[in-house]
Amino acid sequence: MMLKIALIGYGYWGKNLARNFNNLPTCNFFALAEVDENKRASFAAAYPKAKVFSDAKEVLADSEIDAVVIATPVDSHYSLAKAALEAGKNVLVEKPMTDSHVKAMELQKIAEEKGLVLMVDHTFLYTGAVRYLKEKVDAGDYGNITYVDSMRINLGLFQHDVNVLWDLAPHDISIVHYLVNKRPISLTAIGISHTNNNIENIAYLTLKYEGNLMVHFNCSWVSPVKLRQMIIGGDKKMILFNDMEPTEKLKVYDTGFKVRSDQEKNIFNADYRVGDIYVPKVPATEALLLMAEDFVNSINNGNSPDSNAALGVHVVEILEKAELSIKNNGKEILLD
Amino acid sequence: MMLKIALIGYGYWGKNLARNFNNLPTCNFFALAEVDENKRASFAAAYPKAKVFSDAKEVLADSEIDAVVIATPVDSHYSLAKAALEAGKNVLVEKPMTDSHVKAMELQKIAEEKGLVLMVDHTFLYTGAVRYLKEKVDAGDYGNITYVDSMRINLGLFQHDVNVLWDLAPHDISIVHYLVNKRPISLTAIGISHTNNNIENIAYLTLKYEGNLMVHFNCSWVSPVKLRQMIIGGDKKMILFNDMEPTEKLKVYDTGFKVRSDQEKNIFNADYRVGDIYVPKVPATEALLLMAEDFVNSINNGNSPDSNAALGVHVVEILEKAELSIKNNGKEILLD
Amino acid sequence: MMLKIALIGYGYWGKNLARNFNNLPTCNFFALAEVDENKRASFAAAYPKAKVFSDAKEVLADSEIDAVVIATPVDSHYSLAKAALEAGKNVLVEKPMTDSHVKAMELQKIAEEKGLVLMVDHTFLYTGAVRYLKEKVDAGDYGNITYVDSMRINLGLFQHDVNVLWDLAPHDISIVHYLVNKRPISLTAIGISHTNNNIENIAYLTLKYEGNLMVHFNCSWVSPVKLRQMIIGGDKKMILFNDMEPTEKLKVYDTGFKVRSDQEKNIFNADYRVGDIYVPKVPATEALLLMAEDFVNSINNGNSPDSNAALGVHVVEILEKAELSIKNNGKEILLD
Amino acid sequence: MMLKIALIGYGYWGKNLARNFNNLPTCNFFALAEVDENKRASFAAAYPKAKVFSDAKEVLADSEIDAVVIATPVDSHYSLAKAALEAGKNVLVEKPMTDSHVKAMELQKIAEEKGLVLMVDHTFLYTGAVRYLKEKVDAGDYGNITYVDSMRINLGLFQHDVNVLWDLAPHDISIVHYLVNKRPISLTAIGISHTNNNIENIAYLTLKYEGNLMVHFNCSWVSPVKLRQMIIGGDKKMILFNDMEPTEKLKVYDTGFKVRSDQEKNIFNADYRVGDIYVPKVPATEALLLMAEDFVNSINNGNSPDSNAALGVHVVEILEKAELSIKNNGKEILLD
Repeated sequence: MMLKIALIGYGYWGKNLARNFNNLPTCNFFALAEVDENKRASFAAAYPKAKVFSDAKEVLADSEIDAVVIATPVDSHYSLAKAALEAGKNVLVEKPMTDSHVKAMELQKIAEEKGLVLMVDHTFLYTGAVRYLKEKVDAGDYGNITYVDSMRINLGLFQHDVNVLWDLAPHDISIVHYLVNKRPISLTAIGISHTNNNIENIAYLTLKYEGNLMVHFNCSWVSPVKLRQMIIGGDKKMILFNDMEPTEKLKVYDTGFKVRSDQEKNIFNADYRVGDIYVPKVPATEALLLMAEDFVNSINNGNSPDSNAALGVHVVEILEKAELSIKNNGKEILLD
Repeated sequence: MMLKIALIGYGYWGKNLARNFNNLPTCNFFALAEVDENKRASFAAAYPKAKVFSDAKEVLADSEIDAVVIATPVDSHYSLAKAALEAGKNVLVEKPMTDSHVKAMELQKIAEEKGLVLMVDHTFLYTGAVRYLKEKVDAGDYGNITYVDSMRINLGLFQHDVNVLWDLAPHDISIVHYLVNKRPISLTAIGISHTNNNIENIAYLTLKYEGNLMVHFNCSWVSPVKLRQMIIGGDKKMILFNDMEPTEKLKVYDTGFKVRSDQEKNIFNADYRVGDIYVPKVPATEALLLMAEDFVNSINNGNSPDSNAALGVHVVEILEKAELSIKNNGKEILLD
Repeated sequence: MMLKIALIGYGYWGKNLARNFNNLPTCNFFALAEVDENKRASFAAAYPKAKVFSDAKEVLADSEIDAVVIATPVDSHYSLAKAALEAGKNVLVEKPMTDSHVKAMELQKIAEEKGLVLMVDHTFLYTGAVRYLKEKVDAGDYGNITYVDSMRINLGLFQHDVNVLWDLAPHDISIVHYLVNKRPISLTAIGISHTNNNIENIAYLTLKYEGNLMVHFNCSWVSPVKLRQMIIGGDKKMILFNDMEPTEKLKVYDTGFKVRSDQEKNIFNADYRVGDIYVPKVPATEALLLMAEDFVNSINNGNSPDSNAALGVHVVEILEKAELSIKNNGKEILLD
Repeated sequence: MMLKIALIGYGYWGKNLARNFNNLPTCNFFALAEVDENKRASFAAAYPKAKVFSDAKEVLADSEIDAVVIATPVDSHYSLAKAALEAGKNVLVEKPMTDSHVKAMELQKIAEEKGLVLMVDHTFLYTGAVRYLKEKVDAGDYGNITYVDSMRINLGLFQHDVNVLWDLAPHDISIVHYLVNKRPISLTAIGISHTNNNIENIAYLTLKYEGNLMVHFNCSWVSPVKLRQMIIGGDKKMILFNDMEPTEKLKVYDTGFKVRSDQEKNIFNADYRVGDIYVPKVPATEALLLMAEDFVNSINNGNSPDSNAALGVHVVEILEKAELSIKNNGKEILLD
């Protein structure tokens, strides 16, 4: 029997999710719950075979449905995901997972107890570039990762309820966590609001890890240029990931330095190596389709998806503690 | 009578200073003091008419000399500049002014008491791009400056005694101070050393100012790409200053946002404006020559140079306090 | 009564045309003729209210239909357009207009005699960048246009029946004709085939005009990089039109030269001016929608559309004569 | 005994040649002949040990001198080089070798008869990028070269006596000849003069070769942007050589196409391959020094230099015949 999937919420991103789940041959895209009448009508025209509900409760009450995809505003994620899990449904929820770390952990615990898949849609993990990097980092091709430096800046869109980190940093936090697979020791963050509402539109977040790794994120809604640039420093290679490039997203530099022993030290205490650069071709598969597939396969095979609940919890924890640090003028927050 | 100028130190930068002072028609490039014999010989071949001394004391004792240019390692700046001022010489000293804030203030005080010019060679202030920006900022063309975000990253050269901020950030700190002409309220900085010697090779420095201005500097010796990029956000225009571009260094964006009044607020709380972009032609005069000229003119006319002692003191203060913040895990340091 | 429009051909471009005519409030997107059954079904699902025919003759026989849009392979353009005009329909035909100059002229003559609109879909004329350029050229802002130099190169797709000029140069030829609005005096073209079939995959076409204007087009299907770059030299300004840039497509250079009078001539016989650069914001309206609108409005108002039959004829004439020149090793072909 | 070298002409390029020959440990930079008194004085100050003559004849009469380097205006190359060869001196002459093909061949013949080295300073052949390409082309890494497409455009400097091809194309012609090492079958060229003196400031030159190779050069003195870009298409790899890039001058694309057999042909008659991109690090040695070294070594070892007389003759032949083609409206000129 094919897995029956229902979608809750048919906004901008819900439409993309619907299209991809519908394209997936391994599941049955079965139903929608959406409060807005016009959106329900638009959905019905596009997916005439699917059921349409106005209330998410109807989806959760439908015993045919195996899994729900939650694409509603973030403040409803917790209650919807909790109710779905308690109704025995597998859950995929939009990022960020919830608006608080405690709630995210509670969802993770319920899913574990019930043996259900709980996944967060950190779509970036499924892009060709990130999957390529993950494979190479895991194979040790780049050596130990010693730093990551990311810029994610553009003009707008200002959110009215969450700061720029909650809006933009989930991408970076999830990518870095996926690649380095370590928990930071501490973080500091600093930001500024130009909108008279204490909601920061520029913020900087720095994470420190065991093993001498430091990670820095620069997020802004007020840049005249759009930049999506992550530099990843390994002690064997360094990578420039420029997501604004249409095809040449990754440049792998055979670049490095070697600290000199004390005897050799003089004015400069390192030797440098600058070698060839390599621009790998990365597959162009649609990330959202791979994400949807991972959800379906994880349910069917009992695996943990790449973008699993633990990763989702981590992202929310970092965001919440970054906000705390910002409100305390950059005070370092230790992560136990 | 033409001003008689002596140079102390004929290393890499000393050579550039010699060439420019020698090209200046308004002064007499008169003498060098340099401990290294080979460097003295090299100087003598290039400037056969100038006097050559092996000890800086001889320069200071030479009553014909009106002004000295100090291009020695930073740890000698204080004692040489102090001795020169006390000998009644006007002083131009390489950046950073000294290795401590207290020493820098002391030099400033002596110069004031003696009525001598004390100037720091923050060459960047004399580039065509920065002078263009200064003129426009002062004219109000860009509105209030609300943020500056700078990256100055490349591979090497690791210093053995000072961290990456002392090496690279003087440029950024001096440019921002020149443009906004305000004292920060506080700073935080964070960094990491990959060289087992507690000397940070990556560091991030954030300054907060009255009037809702935040400034962020990203400095690194371990980047595979060389970036020299400063984004300046004004509430009328925003500027991208890319110093790696051979000619199109400045892009002025007619870009901005306007916070909505509460009544209008909905999901997004601002309106955006994206307009034309303008790339002004900036003069290509050599910055070092203009700097040298400012020194000579300031002495002759009794003006304060653009890169004056107060600016030099400010740079050292920020660097010193940034180091303190780094060593305290990003603790905010208040500037009285 | 709203104009009733029928589409002939529902391939790749036909779908785009359907979507845009359907979005146009000023016409009634009324019917399709398409031989392929699957394509008809796909159309019927998307446009349930439109009539669907399997044979173009049925469209032409339908007296309700005012205008037809022909989006079929180029070798059918002439016979379909001719039949449509003779049936009293206004006609919009895909570019290139026909596969021969004689046929194109015949269509133009029929349309004129019948008082019908005959338009060719040179979509590029309706892009924001080209319309901006047209306005400025007409206003004299750039002075006399003295040269155009264009590159339109990428990898693939090799056509099996026409050379690379027929495939790529219609864009450039139509843009230049629209901007300078002059008939060339002569052309030369040269090309090479790497596919053993005498169909050139690289070709260069040069047009000469009265008034000392020369235009050069470089077209290739075998470039490792995709370039879409046109430099337009005026004697007041010069423009770089880079269509690969997502937003900054036009750069207007305040650059020029002035020939010296004989008395002044020495080694170099011109003075140069290099000034500011200006990147105008151009509207982002979808070009195909504006093109569709121009068709409908031209019919309703009795105007000539921008991309009119004369322009379409010109493009085919140049392509045909360029092919002749290529087959004669670059022999100059005079245009009467 | 070390080779004794004399320079004739101490203009802009002469200074560069002097500096490099003087830096070469394998020769004795011995003398200068220069008619201008100020230039002689400037030389004497820089090279106090070298002899200084006012007339080139004195150099040729000096029996100690083994070789002369001619850096005078092009119209004097022939007579100076001829006299030098007849005086038994080895000769290095600035590019272009002469202002006529016949004269160039005569010089080549004299040098052969006398057993002297005659070399032309096509400096580009000695750059790291071109040497890297030469090595890879010769090793067959890129397969057969099927096309070259080059742009060398900028604003100015207009020459008063030769067209833009004589000024800019020697670089491209020499590079392509060095890489493909074949004689073209024919050429066509077309150009335009905007300076009322029949001296073209924009010109296009196309060369055809056996083996289905076509080469196109685009040269201009009237471009608002400076481009130095050569695309080299091989049937195994394709290369973008961008000489404006400070370090990443070469991008090697694992890109290609394979013509389909007739049975498979449908709409498109080729399959495409787009793979990784590779940016090799190329050595940064100064090209002019390597060129000087090749001259000295060729004399000492009796080798032919890379930039030998035959290559110099070829460049002049192409330039002369290109001018003929331009003056005949792009008429194809066959090369026997």
